[in-house]
Amino acid sequence: MRINRLIYHEGKVTNPYSVAPTSHFFGSTSQSDPLFWFVYACGPLPHTRGYLLFGSTLLSGWPVSTVHRKEASRFVPSSVRFFSFHYLSSASSFLHPLKMEFKKPATVLNLANIRQALVRMEDTVVFSFIERSQFYESPSVYAPNKYKIPNFSGSFLDWLLLQNEKTHSLVRRYESPDETPFFPDQLEESFLPSLNYPPVLADYADEVNVNDEIRTVYIEKIVPQIAAKRGDQDENIGSTACADVDCLQALSRRVHFGKFVAEAKFQNEMAHYTNLIRNKDIKGIEEAITDSAVEAKILERLIAKGHAYGTDPTLRYSQNPQSKVQPEAIAKIYKEVVIPLTKKVEVEYLLRRLGDDDEAEAQDPQRKTQLMNRLLSNSLW
Amino acid sequence: MRINRLIYHEGKVTNPYSVAPTSHFFGSTSQSDPLFWFVYACGPLPHTRGYLLFGSTLLSGWPVSTVHRKEASRFVPSSVRFFSFHYLSSASSFLHPLKMEFKKPATVLNLANIRQALVRMEDTVVFSFIERSQFYESPSVYAPNKYKIPNFSGSFLDWLLLQNEKTHSLVRRYESPDETPFFPDQLEESFLPSLNYPPVLADYADEVNVNDEIRTVYIEKIVPQIAAKRGDQDENIGSTACADVDCLQALSRRVHFGKFVAEAKFQNEMAHYTNLIRNKDIKGIEEAITDSAVEAKILERLIAKGHAYGTDPTLRYSQNPQSKVQPEAIAKIYKEVVIPLTKKVEVEYLLRRLGDDDEAEAQDPQRKTQLMNRLLSNSLW
Repeated sequence: MRINRLIYHEGKVTNPYSVAPTSHFFGSTSQSDPLFWFVYACGPLPHTRGYLLFGSTLLSGWPVSTVHRKEASRFVPSSVRFFSFHYLSSASSFLHPLKMEFKKPATVLNLANIRQALVRMEDTVVFSFIERSQFYESPSVYAPNKYKIPNFSGSFLDWLLLQNEKTHSLVRRYESPDETPFFPDQLEESFLPSLNYPPVLADYADEVNVNDEIRTVYIEKIVPQIAAKRGDQDENIGSTACADVDCLQALSRRVHFGKFVAEAKFQNEMAHYTNLIRNKDIKGIEEAITDSAVEAKILERLIAKGHAYGTDPTLRYSQNPQSKVQPEAIAKIYKEVVIPLTKKVEVEYLLRRLGDDDEAEAQDPQRKTQLMNRLLSNSLW
Repeated sequence: MRINRLIYHEGKVTNPYSVAPTSHFFGSTSQSDPLFWFVYACGPLPHTRGYLLFGSTLLSGWPVSTVHRKEASRFVPSSVRFFSFHYLSSASSFLHPLKMEFKKPATVLNLANIRQALVRMEDTVVFSFIERSQFYESPSVYAPNKYKIPNFSGSFLDWLLLQNEKTHSLVRRYESPDETPFFPDQLEESFLPSLNYPPVLADYADEVNVNDEIRTVYIEKIVPQIAAKRGDQDENIGSTACADVDCLQALSRRVHFGKFVAEAKFQNEMAHYTNLIRNKDIKGIEEAITDSAVEAKILERLIAKGHAYGTDPTLRYSQNPQSKVQPEAIAKIYKEVVIPLTKKVEVEYLLRRLGDDDEAEAQDPQRKTQLMNRLLSNSLW
């Protein structure tokens, strides 16, 4: 059974690249085989790169796990970069990779899911910039103690951001491993029962926090590029600061998602990263985590999104379609701020990745088998 | 001097409709005339309908005022529906109508500005729906007392919305005439000095508040159309409720903007509305405030925005561009919820519009002249 035909007819593989000649799809499935295996492999498929779903038997709910590229080499020719085995409960189920859910660690460290989440976050970032662009630059919002605020010393923005974080900590926002507070020391305990997320990242992950830098660079470099005008507009300081909070939180989530990228890459190429980390080879780590082709695609896509989301589509063919934020400015912000800060998070995270246990594990010749077993028993359902 | 040529060459009139054959532009300006008049008139120009900017002399900073359609009939042929006189400090200044600022009442009651604000708010509404569409329907978020919240009885959403409103009331959000709280009785006093907005609306305007209805219809009719899936997702109740707060506030601002629409229409056609209001002719008021052609345009534009903003533009030509919210659903929500509720706000506002003073004023035969004088002395600078 050739799966590429199925994929095509199902019409669910949405990206034109998926039927490009560089993609490979192959599979085997047999109704009569109780183990009912399915395997497919893909080349440079955007959004679905580098995951291996692995499963067996007819029983619904059987373990399906993510296995990484290193392990995968046992099963497929080396010419295939990324591939997956997938339990098929229906002919098309494999076409919907399991969605990222923080209660299911394997879905979080799936590079395809991470990629998809990062692409989706671009929308939130662009929307928040567009909303911010309605207001003036408003330096008073960022000046420390410009306004007299009872029991508080700091900028107006900081005050609003802190109130927001306090309220959201009460409803468990910062328990989620993809949320990083700007005021980690001032959070409150939630009245809701803890969610007890299974660990996805190393235990020091919360300490990798570049929010102070994000805030500084946001105020100094981003605001001037997206604000409607220079100067202050006293009656809009509240709206402005609210829009700032949204921008900062969107940027913070995007940048700190680097931790998941780093963890997934580490697990995928453990020997290589272990070496680099042991040698404190920061340049080597930066090179290993950098994919210039992907970065170029991100910038291209941001310009497209800036045009699409920032322009009234019914005015698109007029003489001056009035982009609310210059698409090139959004790409520039990513190139100069978001991508470098994400890499900083990745490097900081990776440099600490070899705790004692990890180091022992990495030296263990049985490591690969252990990893495989762990992953296979790691149910996604 | 024929102004249509200028407009076109300036390249600032952005809408293709502006050069449609139904548009009229005419003007007169004379450098030698110390009163240096400028007049232009337009037909059905979207976003610039129905305003008259009125000014004179060479002095920069001279009064420029809005005058309404009724008054305008003195100056231009009746075949021209909308027109304006504008003080020209530079050849292109008249092409940028003065932006809406709540500290300058005449800019707020300018129908062109109101229209533009409403069009811009569509973006915020669509963005907020797209953000909400990442999460499940989450009925637990809306069920009263589903979660035990200290010192609070109500739904989880209500709790989060109340915290948000309390914080924002501290920074004057609800002093602004375009913001309407869901919990008007539980707001706090701001630590910032009051902004003392000049009155734009009648003094009972704050009492026209349909937020309870907005919340009900949002939960019952809107959420099911935009949520990713049925059911609950315990770890996302916080994110879901945050997205809900954004949707509700965007909808509330949009719907209650009807007050400005109503006030501007009332001032434009005072005699007609006075009659209708005096006769408590609700059907007549509804007819007077309804423009079916404009409504059809809104729905068309929302579908275009749903496609443009809800789709990754780099995937637009793939087999399944994955609209995050069905554009038709957004149009349906406007048609069945937003537009009817806006009209309800307009009617409620108008039915109370004839206080004793207004009634006296409307009967005064000098009314038109008085209005004209008042408007002319009403500086926008």
